[in-house]
Amino acid sequence: MQNKFITVEGLESSGKTTACSIIIKTLNEYGISKKNIVLTREPGGTPIAESLRYIIKKNTKKEFISDKAELLIMYAARVQLLENVIKPALNVGKWVISDRYDLSSQAYQGGGRQLDKNLIHHLKSMVLDDIYPNLTFYLDITPDICLRRLQKKGDLDRIEQESLSFFERTRNCYLDIVRKDNSIIFIDATKSLDTVIQNLKNSLFNWLKIK
Amino acid sequence: MQNKFITVEGLESSGKTTACSIIIKTLNEYGISKKNIVLTREPGGTPIAESLRYIIKKNTKKEFISDKAELLIMYAARVQLLENVIKPALNVGKWVISDRYDLSSQAYQGGGRQLDKNLIHHLKSMVLDDIYPNLTFYLDITPDICLRRLQKKGDLDRIEQESLSFFERTRNCYLDIVRKDNSIIFIDATKSLDTVIQNLKNSLFNWLKIK
Repeated sequence: MQNKFITVEGLESSGKTTACSIIIKTLNEYGISKKNIVLTREPGGTPIAESLRYIIKKNTKKEFISDKAELLIMYAARVQLLENVIKPALNVGKWVISDRYDLSSQAYQGGGRQLDKNLIHHLKSMVLDDIYPNLTFYLDITPDICLRRLQKKGDLDRIEQESLSFFERTRNCYLDIVRKDNSIIFIDATKSLDTVIQNLKNSLFNWLKIK
Repeated sequence: MQNKFITVEGLESSGKTTACSIIIKTLNEYGISKKNIVLTREPGGTPIAESLRYIIKKNTKKEFISDKAELLIMYAARVQLLENVIKPALNVGKWVISDRYDLSSQAYQGGGRQLDKNLIHHLKSMVLDDIYPNLTFYLDITPDICLRRLQKKGDLDRIEQESLSFFERTRNCYLDIVRKDNSIIFIDATKSLDTVIQNLKNSLFNWLKIK
């Protein structure tokens, strides 16, 4: 079957990294070999985009980062990833799995930061160049669980240090979009790890069968 | 008199750094003390914006930088400078002199890179927050002179390595805007240094008198 672009979305600590591994494993079981799959992440995935990620998330300069600057840097990182990794991979027939993509900006900068949705929409249409994921898994957890898991983890970055209300707004924005977009599969990530993995695998298998 | 925001624009090697010193000296002669003047530059002027400048201009990763990413990074750097340096300085009554500002994006990304002017206009209105320079000096040199001076300088950054046609498009865009905007003073920077300095000082003195 034709190669696809699959993304994984959700709050911090919702299990996105594990989900990406499960997706790759499931694709392997379906007969798509590892050398035909590119795994990447956002913000990041290219040397320059990783530098931008570092600026945004680590903020080692301890400088106030404007929400607008955060948004623009996220989209700059996305352009680099799209042009230098995603497009070239899709063009040679590879599958692309990305840990976060544009939906994160809708949810975090649109919902969490409450930036103007028109502005984000404008940036999106300018940047994405009509390359949209064929399938997205949204791993849903409550902001409570998100914060509890983050506290256990410790050594939090600038975004992970955000408030409960920030993550509530972010999650609500995710849920609003998930409800309207049927290329997004909702996964209840508050369930046991085994259940989450099974749900993910089943959904992906079903999707692959009809594609 | 009330503090003002003054910017200096032009191609590489047009003498912007010297012009900034002359402006500060002239303001001093006019009775505005050094401690009431903030000198900054673009892209840069804050630790994060300087990191972004480094990414764009040095490209040590040798990664292809998309024109759109360049534009977004320029505006991200501008937000940081505006919010963390320019606005606070203006708010406490200081004068701000900036070596480059938004007009550079119009000329370099709009003219040189030929990016969609509507898009740049949208970013501009989103980012600038109605803070515009009260006065801009545009130092005009021909692209030929620009390249000749750059060749003498050596060790060129990513933008300085651009082609003659890039600088031609950039200059033409500058000239188009300068013609229409009477807050911009045209300075012929191909003249002798003494003449350029004298013209700058005279124009600034005249402007100060009527303000």
